[in-house]
Order: sequence, then C-alpha cells, then structure tokens
Amino acid sequence: MQKPYVIGVDMGGTNTVFGVVDARGNVVLKSAIKTGAHPNDVNRYIDDIHDELSKLIEQVGGLEKIKGIGIGAPNGNYYTGNIEFAPNLPWKGIIPFAKLMSEKFGIPAALTNDANAAAIGEMTYGVARGMKNFIMITLGTGVGSGIIIDGKLVYGHDGFAGELGHAIVVRSNGRVCGCGRTGCLEAYTSATGVARTAREMLETGNKASLLRNVPIESITSKDVYDAALQGDQVALDIFEYTGRILGEAFANFVAFSAPEAIVLFGGLAKAGDFIKKPVVEHMERNILQIWKGKVKVLFSELKEADAAILGASALAWEL
Amino acid sequence: MQKPYVIGVDMGGTNTVFGVVDARGNVVLKSAIKTGAHPNDVNRYIDDIHDELSKLIEQVGGLEKIKGIGIGAPNGNYYTGNIEFAPNLPWKGIIPFAKLMSEKFGIPAALTNDANAAAIGEMTYGVARGMKNFIMITLGTGVGSGIIIDGKLVYGHDGFAGELGHAIVVRSNGRVCGCGRTGCLEAYTSATGVARTAREMLETGNKASLLRNVPIESITSKDVYDAALQGDQVALDIFEYTGRILGEAFANFVAFSAPEAIVLFGGLAKAGDFIKKPVVEHMERNILQIWKGKVKVLFSELKEADAAILGASALAWEL
Repeated sequence: MQKPYVIGVDMGGTNTVFGVVDARGNVVLKSAIKTGAHPNDVNRYIDDIHDELSKLIEQVGGLEKIKGIGIGAPNGNYYTGNIEFAPNLPWKGIIPFAKLMSEKFGIPAALTNDANAAAIGEMTYGVARGMKNFIMITLGTGVGSGIIIDGKLVYGHDGFAGELGHAIVVRSNGRVCGCGRTGCLEAYTSATGVARTAREMLETGNKASLLRNVPIESITSKDVYDAALQGDQVALDIFEYTGRILGEAFANFVAFSAPEAIVLFGGLAKAGDFIKKPVVEHMERNILQIWKGKVKVLFSELKEADAAILGASALAWEL
Repeated sequence: MQKPYVIGVDMGGTNTVFGVVDARGNVVLKSAIKTGAHPNDVNRYIDDIHDELSKLIEQVGGLEKIKGIGIGAPNGNYYTGNIEFAPNLPWKGIIPFAKLMSEKFGIPAALTNDANAAAIGEMTYGVARGMKNFIMITLGTGVGSGIIIDGKLVYGHDGFAGELGHAIVVRSNGRVCGCGRTGCLEAYTSATGVARTAREMLETGNKASLLRNVPIESITSKDVYDAALQGDQVALDIFEYTGRILGEAFANFVAFSAPEAIVLFGGLAKAGDFIKKPVVEHMERNILQIWKGKVKVLFSELKEADAAILGASALAWEL
C-alpha cells in the first residue's frame, strides 16, 4: 500500500520547521525548533528534530505511515545528501545530513537546496502541477532558482545546477554580491537588492517620496511596496528598475531551456503586479521572436506559511 | 537483431549531405545533392534525396539493415518533425519533413536543428562520450547550441530550447543581430562577428597589422586566424575580445546547468588555443566559486567533413 504521508524539513539559518504532509499537499501537523541551539554538534540538533517530529509521527499512526523525509537546506547537494560549506549554518565543512537523518529515523531521506525544494513543491502541489518545463525563481534575502526540464529537477554534473541568482547581469560597475563577484542578478533583484536600489535612487535623485520618511539605512523592500501601494513614484521607479533587470535576465533564461512558465516565489513576489508588470514587459521586449507572448510569468500558489515544508516534503515522494 | 546502420542527413542552405553510418561512428558511404534545385516543391527535393540515398542503402544490404533516418535541419523541431519558417531554405512556412521522409523511405525518421544534432553526435561518437551533462556550442556563420542534461538533449516546452547564440550579452549599444534584436552572443562570437570585430578594431585603432593588407570589407575570421599565426597583435586582440565575451557568457551558462564540459565546434573552433585560452581565462574569472577549475572547455572530436552527417545520424539510434 502507498504510504499516505511524507515529512518535510526546512532548515533556515534561524529556525528549522518541519511537518507531516499528505499526498494532496496538506500540512497536517507541523512544528519547529531553533537551528542554532547546538553550534558544535549537529547530532544534538538532529536529536532535537527527532524529539519534536516523533510526536507528530505518532499522531498520524507511526513510522509505517511515512514514505520518507525530504529536506530543504542551504547548500544542500541532492547527489551526495550533504550540506556543503553553508555560510549561514553553525556547522562548518561537509555534513552528511540526509544520511544522519535517515539513520536516526530509520526511513529514507533526501536533501536539496531550498530553491530546488520550492520548485519540486510547486510541481507537486502548486501552480506548476502538470508542467514539464518551468523555472522557479525565489526572490528573498537572496535570489535562488530551481529548474525543471522534462519533468525533472536539473542538478547538473555536480548537484549544484540552477544558481541563476548568480548569473552576472551587469558587466561594468556592477554591485558587489555576497558571492564575492560583481553584477549578479541577486545583487539587484533580491529583497536586499531592492532596498539598495531604493537607497541609491533616494540619494542620487531629488524626487519627493514617502520613502524619505524612513531612515535611509533601514529601508526595506516592504517599505517600497507600501509606498508603491500609495502611488509613490520613486517606489514605482524602483520596481520598474528591478523588473527590467529581472525581465532581461528571464529572456536569456528562456533561450536556454524554453520553459512553459517562470514561477515567482518569496518575499518580493508579494509585490504582485508592481513587480510582475515590468518583468513581463522587459522579458517580452528582449525575448527571441519565437517565444514572444508564449512564456507565462506566474506567482507561486503554495501557502506561504507552509511553502517551505511542502517544498521539502515533495522530494520524499520521489524516494 | 540490432540493425547495423543509420542514415544521417544534414540539410544546409546550399548543399544537403547524407550518408550511411555504423554504430562506431564511421560514415561508410556518403553523397550530396543541391538543396535548392526545386524551390517550389519539397517533394521533388525529397525525390532527389531518395534517388541518391537508395543507391547507398542498396550497397550496405538494403533497407532492412537501416534502423532509421536522423535529420539535422535549420529551424528543425524535434517534437513535431517539422521545419518551421527557416529563413535560409527555399520552402516557406511549415514543412512536415520527418513525416515526408519517413513515408518516402518506409522507415522511421527524426529531425532536429543542426546544433542539437551536433550535440547528440558528440555524445554518441565524439569527445563527450559518456558525459551526462555538457553544452555544445557551434561557432560558425551563426552561433548555435545543443544542451545535454542528464544524458538527454534539452528541447524545452516547445522544442526550441538551446538558443544560446541569442542570449543577449551586451545590454547597451549592442550590435544588431540577424534575429532583429541587439547584443546577442552570435553578433560577437560567430565567424561573421569576428570579422566585424576585425573591421571595427582596424577602423577605430591605428596599430600596424597584417590585416591591413586585406580589403577591409572582405576580411574573414580565417584572415584573422592566419594573422594570429604570425603573431599579429591586432589579430590576437580580436581573439582576446571574442574569447572574453564567450567566456563571460559561458560562466552564466554554467550557473544554469552545471555541465561537466562545454564543447566547441564549427569554423571558429579551428582557431584552437587562440580562442580557447581567452575563453577559459574569462570563464574562470567570472564563474561562481564552486565551479572554478572544474568545467572543461573542449574541442569537438568529430571529423569535420563527416560531423554534420554523424550528428544527424546519431538521432536515429534513439528512434
């Protein structure tokens, strides 16, 4: 008999959230722990997860009801099951996390990075159900991506494919990126990139703006959204600039894999048409003739509170 | 019993070459016809191919020895088997070429575009044998590409994936491309792009150069190569410029699919280290840390005279 549930675990820098998920994509039970309570011992961290998660598993009828554990983790490598040199996690070097989890729980476990998990989640439960070719772009603190081709996630030769946030899109005088290079998509179209654009536009221009009421160093992409809602022209200019860079990049991504859709996910996606409209406009303006009007730009349909758990859990159906 | 031969047909704007190929990648017999002899009737063109090719098929023991026909054609769509609106062919609109060929010969036929055929050929018989993830870049009159992920060619949602020659790499004041847009990779790194770079450098600079002995409007990439062989500095600068643009683009392609290798094919690949050295240097300079020193840049190993037939023929093994 097909086992009715999977476990999804999403490891963030601060919190680790996990839950029991059914085949329709309902998170039937969930909980969370602090990620950093045992910075020197990943096994004690796994003990913490086990203590909490075992309670949830008991409530749905025990381990025999669980097909497996899917994990989304920063720098997670699907091929090896390892977390490799993740800058935002307390444990250094290479952690064989999928293996440790599988041994602790006694059921299969698979791991990938957060953006890949989001793509699989979207294909399994979300707006990309039934799509064989799409690209998931996560617009959060950073910019991540998960690429689906022919119904499968692209891992590439080494397991690290799909780093579209680090496509270089500005060749001269590009912004410094967290990866140490300059001009990456992430430096412009992440939530932090949008805040940076806001500071630059306010400092170099002199247009009146609601954003001038916010201390300039603490402006967030949420402030820009709130100002745009009130028709603030500088805020709209910021979304136009961000959407242009994103749309131009999308036109090039389409030339690579000819997807049916590009799905937007993450904090910045909440800006809705403020971001989508310029993205679509500049993608269409820069796309090769054969794809004009054919590639959909969509928003994720996963409920935000559950999306990370759902994405990770979807991996486990494939075990 | 496995049939021992396949047919490869490569349709060019001027000539159509075809041959009988064995499983080791030997073109055992080959011939050619003019592509444009019957501009108003594709069926008479197919009759011409049939007349010539039937002689070769008889020589290897008849149709029962042939597994199928693989075709490389401009604007060829693998999913539909159609040639769709090819600007360099005499027949307009949509031609169901794979179907017509299959009906005429009475064996299965498959079709794709020339660059995709080259990628499958390289994987089947060439330097990419055994590789599951690589990108083929063809540097000829235009720039084409065929992308292999997880051992399969990427066709995308509509069959037209892998148009990397039309990735936009120069955002402002980019060169006009044959596709009608500006700044495409093809406008800089095709053989014609190299000739254009030569003209620009000679006209805007005043360095002495052997290339000044060639009438400026007739300079070809071959002239640049010949001058580079003699140590001409302008010719070396042209390859450096071309290699920089190509290497920067490759760094972004790697962020997409994390290939094991990028394979260079076509006229410009004959420039050898003159092009490879700057490509590798600028790819490494622009690539994300995790891939530094890991992605090979290789030259095609298919014999040039047979490469087009081999590439097309490789499709037929998969029928």
